Amino acid sequence: MTLVPAADPTAARASFRAGLAVPSSGWAPGHTQANLVVLPRDWAWDMLLFGQRNPQPVPLLDVTDAGSYRTVLAPDADLRTDLPRYRVWRDGELVDEPTDVTGLWTDDLVAFLIGCSFSFETALLDAGVPVRNIEQGRNVSMYRTDRECRPAGRLSGPLVVSMRPVPAHLVTTAVQVTARMPQVHGAPVHVGSPAALGIADLARPDFGDPVEAEDGDVPVFWACGVTPQAALMASRPPFAITHAPGHMFVTDVPDAVYRQP
Amino acid sequence: MTLVPAADPTAARASFRAGLAVPSSGWAPGHTQANLVVLPRDWAWDMLLFGQRNPQPVPLLDVTDAGSYRTVLAPDADLRTDLPRYRVWRDGELVDEPTDVTGLWTDDLVAFLIGCSFSFETALLDAGVPVRNIEQGRNVSMYRTDRECRPAGRLSGPLVVSMRPVPAHLVTTAVQVTARMPQVHGAPVHVGSPAALGIADLARPDFGDPVEAEDGDVPVFWACGVTPQAALMASRPPFAITHAPGHMFVTDVPDAVYRQP
Repeated sequence: MTLVPAADPTAARASFRAGLAVPSSGWAPGHTQANLVVLPRDWAWDMLLFGQRNPQPVPLLDVTDAGSYRTVLAPDADLRTDLPRYRVWRDGELVDEPTDVTGLWTDDLVAFLIGCSFSFETALLDAGVPVRNIEQGRNVSMYRTDRECRPAGRLSGPLVVSMRPVPAHLVTTAVQVTARMPQVHGAPVHVGSPAALGIADLARPDFGDPVEAEDGDVPVFWACGVTPQAALMASRPPFAITHAPGHMFVTDVPDAVYRQP
Repeated sequence: MTLVPAADPTAARASFRAGLAVPSSGWAPGHTQANLVVLPRDWAWDMLLFGQRNPQPVPLLDVTDAGSYRTVLAPDADLRTDLPRYRVWRDGELVDEPTDVTGLWTDDLVAFLIGCSFSFETALLDAGVPVRNIEQGRNVSMYRTDRECRPAGRLSGPLVVSMRPVPAHLVTTAVQVTARMPQVHGAPVHVGSPAALGIADLARPDFGDPVEAEDGDVPVFWACGVTPQAALMASRPPFAITHAPGHMFVTDVPDAVYRQP
């Protein structure tokens, strides 16, 4: 039996709430998906400031009140149950990957919902720019760079980027399309030279899969939502919950809302 | 003797640091000026979240570390001395308007620098849109609306808007130009009907001066940086420092940096 992804965000979240634990890519197409980071109140200031200071890798779409599992991005959703899979971290170590975190949610927790490049991949395809990782059925390639984010309190770490090979004659289009979407990472941070970002070998990404370039492709680098997770792993808060990679929060917000004129 | 405003941001700040207490309009033209709000650490989370949730009226350009009087917007500046005039608030009441707040600055204070519509007025003029308040030598008209901001912790209050009369055939241009500048309030929140925002009489602004419309002008409303000050006055933190109206912080950042493609 083939699993058919729900077209509607409410139906997608209902499936995940019922326990379906699959990557969310392709679910509720045209609706924004978000990265999740949940932290104790004591660390929330640092993360909110880290997002304010590093808006390209950490575009904050919503931040909840302490204890609340509700978000304006999907008013009927429950952040404790509606993601397909979570990761639980203690002192910077991954300790569990449950499909429900209701039992872990306390009044002390603040949830951060962070924009994701799924939104701009749709916009690239709409503009005729091929997206090689989608063509090849692979996760996008991601790399730690030698650029440091601007620190905030106890949070610091490198900028993490995603790379997509783009045909040279379409690089301008790719820049223009994504520049209009600053809430989902915006314009590329770099075009062309991996070495200039301290990346030794494109074939060996730090996260995700290797993606093959075609003849005439140029590597284009965007700020990546893995950046805040890398900072968390380095900074080791006593407790954190995130989404599991690829298992995002499906919002009610059409991607078009994050496309600027 | 006529006072000639400095063309250079460093020179402008040096004049203000030396005690010159004049409105900053016209100083260091082409460089972004910013609203200042300074709060104790205990209230900083509320203000940072209020900005995240209300980016049109509260576009945060920089937020300092607690105790620091330095900002990336002007690395050689001192936020305690370099504004032409400050306001000091205790329990929501204005208690002083000094030109230097060095003696009041403690390790507990966090400074918020917030985008200002001066930047988009320059862009409107560049695009051929007349700015009536500048033509008439008056402060822009500002109004409390019946729209509530999204609250954050102890901070809540109405959206405050500025109004500029725009010739009907240039309203589209005004929308397009300012939509590209989300960090300085962005696109209008409303065009046309004051009553739809709960504004009874355009001739009686809540802040600033009345500005006269010419025949064929349409009132256009933008989110306004007075919004966070109105929320502070309503929420009465024990201590706050702000800039005095019109006496902004002159940054080193060219306005063009905040114009998106």
